[in-house]
Amino acid sequence: MEGKDDVWGTPRLTRQIAFLMEIDRLKTVLRRTVLTDGSRRENTAEHSWHIAMMAMTLHEYVAEPKPDLSHTIKLLLVHDIVEIDAGDTFAYDTQGYSDKEEREQAAASRIFGLLEEDQAAEYRKLWREFEEMDTREALFAAAIDRLQPMLHNYYTEGYSWKENGVRHAQALRRIGFIDGVSPVLASFIQELLQRAVDRGFLES
Amino acid sequence: MEGKDDVWGTPRLTRQIAFLMEIDRLKTVLRRTVLTDGSRRENTAEHSWHIAMMAMTLHEYVAEPKPDLSHTIKLLLVHDIVEIDAGDTFAYDTQGYSDKEEREQAAASRIFGLLEEDQAAEYRKLWREFEEMDTREALFAAAIDRLQPMLHNYYTEGYSWKENGVRHAQALRRIGFIDGVSPVLASFIQELLQRAVDRGFLES
Repeated sequence: MEGKDDVWGTPRLTRQIAFLMEIDRLKTVLRRTVLTDGSRRENTAEHSWHIAMMAMTLHEYVAEPKPDLSHTIKLLLVHDIVEIDAGDTFAYDTQGYSDKEEREQAAASRIFGLLEEDQAAEYRKLWREFEEMDTREALFAAAIDRLQPMLHNYYTEGYSWKENGVRHAQALRRIGFIDGVSPVLASFIQELLQRAVDRGFLES
Repeated sequence: MEGKDDVWGTPRLTRQIAFLMEIDRLKTVLRRTVLTDGSRRENTAEHSWHIAMMAMTLHEYVAEPKPDLSHTIKLLLVHDIVEIDAGDTFAYDTQGYSDKEEREQAAASRIFGLLEEDQAAEYRKLWREFEEMDTREALFAAAIDRLQPMLHNYYTEGYSWKENGVRHAQALRRIGFIDGVSPVLASFIQELLQRAVDRGFLES
């Protein structure tokens, strides 16, 4: 990339611009999911936008006390940036999950570390909060992050489920916690998975 | 798209899911800007994610009274959805701008109209607010939306500037209002454009 060592205004601004240009690479990280028109695999940057829109649109279904929507959106925008170094770990890839935490920890240190410490810490904290799934916002964000690829799978006749031999019981395990976040969204996704089985998109 | 006429739970949820699957198409709307690695043109969905991250990262530079960051992020996430029908209008395309408003108005009616009226109205309002550039949040959002492609151009040796014969004075006109939003960001982008001229990325 031309000019990547350029200095701008202050050291702080220079680091912010370097970070913002570095995260452009998230647009080249490919996920297993394909677009609903089946034309190509989805990248993680556009996925991040889509789940932020999903959170805005479906927030009304989350059980009381409602998670803060703005904080949820920030979690969703930031949480996948580590994939620039660590790659996307497929949801059903047990081997990939064995060292996921270590790879992502190193990625978070390097990428957020392009920023000055206060801002690096803010983004690392958002990323950790999402991963730990302890707050209401992180649970809602995680629910949306799991709904989205299942919707894409359903609307593409089970494209990545078939490609990766995913079965109904495995998908159900991924969404078990959603009932505690939103009974409405939980029963929606259960119904979607059942229809996927009935239509032959997902193996029973 | 398989299952696009499916009915889910309630009429409201059915319409929300239809909307969320429809906006997946924003991932196939291509802009003139290329990724910083030069590999391909950027699509509007991933652009929307990137500018939301830029707003988070550069919010500190906006003059007092600060715009609300969360509202700015919502404006940025929603404002380009109309491009699904209306296409991306290149910033320097005077002919394209002549009917931009009409095309985008029709797009907003159709796409946000997939939702029930309260939610359709909420998204239309965000889209209108961005377009009208009257609130502090809309001005900050617009500043970020104009900074991002200029950064991409600089870091790709002026790729789309050269391709479309854009000149320094035209770029400067696009950013005139930014000084009122953030003197720091305005002088950063002026410096960037000057260096782009000096390095031969942008015609003087």
